Order: sequence, then C-alpha cells, then structure tokens
Amino acid sequence: MTTIGILGGGQLGRMLAMAAARLGIDAHIYCPDENSPAARVAARATVAGYDDREALTAFADSVDAITTEFENVPAETARFLATRRPVHPSADALEIAQDRVLEKTFLNETGIGTAPWRSVDSIDDLTASLDEIGPRGVLKTRRLGYDGKGQARLNGPDDIAAAFADMADAPAILEGLAAFEREISVIAARAEDGTVRCYDPGENRHSDGILRETVVPADIDGATYDEALAIAERIVGALEYVGVIGVEMFAMQDGTLLVNEIAPRVHNTGHWTIEGCAISQFEQHVRAVCGLPLGDPARHSDAVMENLIGNDIDALPTLLAEAGAAVHLYGKGDARPGRKMGHVTRLVVE
Amino acid sequence: MTTIGILGGGQLGRMLAMAAARLGIDAHIYCPDENSPAARVAARATVAGYDDREALTAFADSVDAITTEFENVPAETARFLATRRPVHPSADALEIAQDRVLEKTFLNETGIGTAPWRSVDSIDDLTASLDEIGPRGVLKTRRLGYDGKGQARLNGPDDIAAAFADMADAPAILEGLAAFEREISVIAARAEDGTVRCYDPGENRHSDGILRETVVPADIDGATYDEALAIAERIVGALEYVGVIGVEMFAMQDGTLLVNEIAPRVHNTGHWTIEGCAISQFEQHVRAVCGLPLGDPARHSDAVMENLIGNDIDALPTLLAEAGAAVHLYGKGDARPGRKMGHVTRLVVE
Repeated sequence: MTTIGILGGGQLGRMLAMAAARLGIDAHIYCPDENSPAARVAARATVAGYDDREALTAFADSVDAITTEFENVPAETARFLATRRPVHPSADALEIAQDRVLEKTFLNETGIGTAPWRSVDSIDDLTASLDEIGPRGVLKTRRLGYDGKGQARLNGPDDIAAAFADMADAPAILEGLAAFEREISVIAARAEDGTVRCYDPGENRHSDGILRETVVPADIDGATYDEALAIAERIVGALEYVGVIGVEMFAMQDGTLLVNEIAPRVHNTGHWTIEGCAISQFEQHVRAVCGLPLGDPARHSDAVMENLIGNDIDALPTLLAEAGAAVHLYGKGDARPGRKMGHVTRLVVE
Repeated sequence: MTTIGILGGGQLGRMLAMAAARLGIDAHIYCPDENSPAARVAARATVAGYDDREALTAFADSVDAITTEFENVPAETARFLATRRPVHPSADALEIAQDRVLEKTFLNETGIGTAPWRSVDSIDDLTASLDEIGPRGVLKTRRLGYDGKGQARLNGPDDIAAAFADMADAPAILEGLAAFEREISVIAARAEDGTVRCYDPGENRHSDGILRETVVPADIDGATYDEALAIAERIVGALEYVGVIGVEMFAMQDGTLLVNEIAPRVHNTGHWTIEGCAISQFEQHVRAVCGLPLGDPARHSDAVMENLIGNDIDALPTLLAEAGAAVHLYGKGDARPGRKMGHVTRLVVE
C-alpha cells in the first residue's frame, strides 16, 4: 500500500486525493487549516504550518512520496522534505514558478516566447518600462497573487502612480499586453524516466482575471497544436519536471504562441479530463509522483468545463437537474465573491 | 453542508463516499472494521458493531441521512437508526432482499417472473422440490451468501444428501435452473417523490459464481430493453424504494425476462457508469438518499467493466500502462482468491 503526501488542502488537493484513492493509494494532507476540503476525503491529515519542521518530519516519515497542490508552498519546505522523501515538483521548479521574473527569464532562456516584460522595482523603472513596451500593460507583483489579485492594469502613463502604489512596495513585473486571438493551455505530465504525455489543449475564457470556462478541443490548427505540445514538452524537459504542469499560452493572430504562465501543479483548465479521458490530470499527477507509468491522455469526448464562482452556486438546483452536467463541489462553506466553489463539466455527445 | 452516513466499509462504501465528495457532501462511515477501504476516503469514521446502540445513536446524530453499502446490514439496525434520521433503503426493503424466499415471494406477488423455486427446510422438502422443479437446480441458504458462497449445485437426486449437508441446517431455497440466453442487470434509482431513472441494462458474465465482466449495452432487442426497465420500475415502486437498486435478470430464448436477484444498493454491474455516464450509480444513490434531484442516467459511451479478482491484480503494471483502461483499486491489502480487489472499465470509443 502506498501513501501520497499532499501539501495544501484546497480543491486541487481534494481531487488529487480522490484520484489517488481510485488507484488504491492513501492520501495524507498537510495544511495549516482545520477541516480543509482535501482533508475530508483523505485517509490522514496533519494540521500544521509549512515551517513546522517537527510536523513536516513526521509527515514525510508517514508517506512514500510528496507533492503539492499549489505553487506557493515555500520552496524551503519542499527542500526540507526532499531530504527524507521524493518531492515532486522539485523546490527548484517551485521557485521558478513562484517568481514571475524568474519564470519569464527561464522561459526566454529556454527559447520560448512571452509577451514583452520588464522587472520593476521603482516608479522610475515602471515609467521607463512602460515607455519601452507600452503604452499599455499589466503591473503584477513578482510573487504570489493569482486569479487577478495583486495586479494593476495600465492604459498609459497616467496610470503609473496608482498602479505602482497598488504593489505596496513589493518587487513587480510589467507585462506588455499580447493582442492574442485566444488563450489556450496545455496540461502536460512528465515521468521520472523522461516520458512526457500531454492532454489536448483547451481554450480558456477568463473574466475579472478568473477562469470561467475551458473548451476542448481548442479551436487551433494542426501546426499550432503541435507547437503548443512541443513548447510544453520543452518546458518540462528543461525543468526535469516530474508530475503534471499547466502551461497557459496566448495564440497570436500570426500563429505564434507566447507562454503566459506555468503552474507546477494540476490546473483548473484540466478539470475536464475527469470526464473527457480515461485518466484524469489528477490521476496522471499521482502516477508521476508515485513512480507509476503515465496513463494515456487521449480525449474520448469533446468537453466544456465551467467554473462555479461565488454565488454561481445558487444555480445548484438547476445544475443538478440538468441532463449531462457533471457537477463537482469542493465542500467549501462560504460562497464568497471570487471563490471557486465547484465546477461543471459537460461532455459534447453527438 | 450535508453529511451522509454509510453503513459498511467496503469498496461500495468507498465509491459512495467519493461520489458524495464530488457533490461536496461529507461521508461518515460506520463499520466494525478498523481502517476499512471506505473509511480511508471519508471525512469521518466510526468503528463499532451494528448492534452497538450507543455508537449508532451518536452516528445518526452526526449525519443528515443514512444509507448502506451492503444488503446484509441487520434490518434491526436500519430500523433503529430510522427513529433518528432518514434511512434508505428502508429496513423493510432490506428484509426482503436478505431472505431469498421473501424476495421471490415479493417478486412473484408483484407479477414478476422468477425461475421456479421451493422453500427447503428439510431433506424431504428438498427431495420433493427437486422432483417438482428439477431435475437440476441450485440449493442456497435463504439468508446471506454471495459471490457463489452458501450454494450447492444439484444435477439430480444423487446430489440431494451432499447439497443439503452443505446448508448446515440453515433454512434454504431450491432454485430451478433457468436455461437463459444471457444475464442482464438493470441499475435503477428511485427518488422519494417517486421519480425513477434507469441506466441502460448491462450484460453480465460470471465465473465460479463471481461477476467477471459487464458489457453495455446488453445485446437485447428493443422490446426486451423496455420490459427490463419496466420490471425494475415495478420493483422499486412496489418497495417504495429510495436509492439505487441492482436487478439481475435472465433473458430467456423466448424473449421473457426472469428476475434472478435484487440487490438494494449500488451494484457491481453498475460500476461502468462512473466512466460511461455523467452521473454514476454512486452519485445517483447519494442524490436519492440525500433528497437531491436524480441525475440523467444517459450513457454517453459503450463500456466494458472487468472485475479484478484475487491475483488478477498481478496484471496491474500492464493495466496501468494500457491505453484507455480506467483502473480502480479498492485499497485492500491481501489479494485472497475470490476477493474483489478492483475493476477496470474500458470505454468503447469509435
């Protein structure tokens, strides 16, 4: 019997634990919150901080392999755990993904295109950067921030002061706007032996910086499809990555692809794989982390995944009664605005 | 937040708990065994006997609705719990399904055909019964026994003594052999408001009295399909049943259907619904028991479900590497002969 240790107790950890259970693998959730969504479907849970070495040691000793459900787990924590058990993704991969400047530097050095960007540490940096790559852009903190948080949009020099103030002195990055045709994402998995398996790219629709919907297959031509998978493969290879990664890309009008962001974990835009494939992204990640062979990522059906955010959840009675709707709820109590409460996947059946 | 209480800790309880989790519903497993497969994916577990009134009371008070994963939970237990919380299936339905004579009597009185049968309490009963409905038949204990246990085959009068001895003085039933063309099963669900939803019938192949494989759709004509669903509907209606039930039927050469057995729970022959439908039998059962609307049982794909029994599990490395195979393992330690360790579902994708 194998036990997988999972850092983090949110919905991704919950779905990872359930995928592990399908394979007969116990999950041990480590997270600072009592009664987390993931802990409630796991064989075991530890409630402790990510800097609690005693708790981390006991956790590591109780499991066979360790992973994380969120990219912002301290790299230090991953590094400490890795002295006792295999930890995937590695602390190095986490560090790169945790800092937008390190991430874009890594991507560009790996020969992968991104929107133009500049590191911003002062208001003068910002003024000069906007002049170079503007006139419009988004200023983001280098670290943390997700779902549109820690970001300020600039439409011109008039917005510089307010945007810079929004960062509250945190090191930042200015990203030029890419006039993309569509946003797609590739969910890729790499095994320890270097085998890579990619799911078909999905096409993503955001609003207010939060993912609303992923449609598979993405409406892209064959060459773009191949290039998208090749980019994901190059990234996981360069990182010597083990596990599932989400790679968000902008498909430009001229056919080129720019990488927007990499997420070293299972990814919201891959939730459709639960219904659309024999092996979901969650099981694929568990397999990679536990050293099992990767599964076949073939998509047997087209699918549309819709997030249930905040009071979207009020539509639950209708959704439960809707033919063909697979409803997933994360067991969170309070439907705060912007909070991901669940999702619905609809297979497109002929 | 809702919590469902589940009596029993085996693989059916495990898959029920996971289906509940998908809906954001916590599971509380009640079973006499420590560290049961179901408890390891549940928010809470009680380890106690089915006659422990104190533990049963605390269990009932901690949940919103109660169900069972196996038909042999004492009806007395269900009756006791029902004084505190809704319990589905009801103690009455359990009692009928627990006794093969009550079950066949119920079926025949509901106008549903079965193979000929006789209640057998003595060797004289058996001799007379075999004379009436023989020359061949199967002698079974009235209560308990499953997967071929507690059964003795008779090929003629010479087998009477040995078969009767096999029953070890337990009240028994002689069932005449039905020369069926195929065995099919209907997984039906009934909600408290009387709504009934049936999955497409599957066709089952047994060996040594244990289910090996279910193929959907069953190879039956339209009239037989309609009749199979009508029979299931009549059964759940007559029982005022709430939840999922498995109805095993013999399809005879002349087109008639005889009911072999009813199982008042989710059913091994319905495991294909996890991959083949938007709403699995497990979620359907949770919905019915928790008073949520029943889901659409439409099958989006053909499927073949294969049980992994005993050392079938040795093929795991091959199965994990097989394209399109969805492997489910139940987290049981010891691969004893005849023990259901997991199953594999393969969608038939064009």
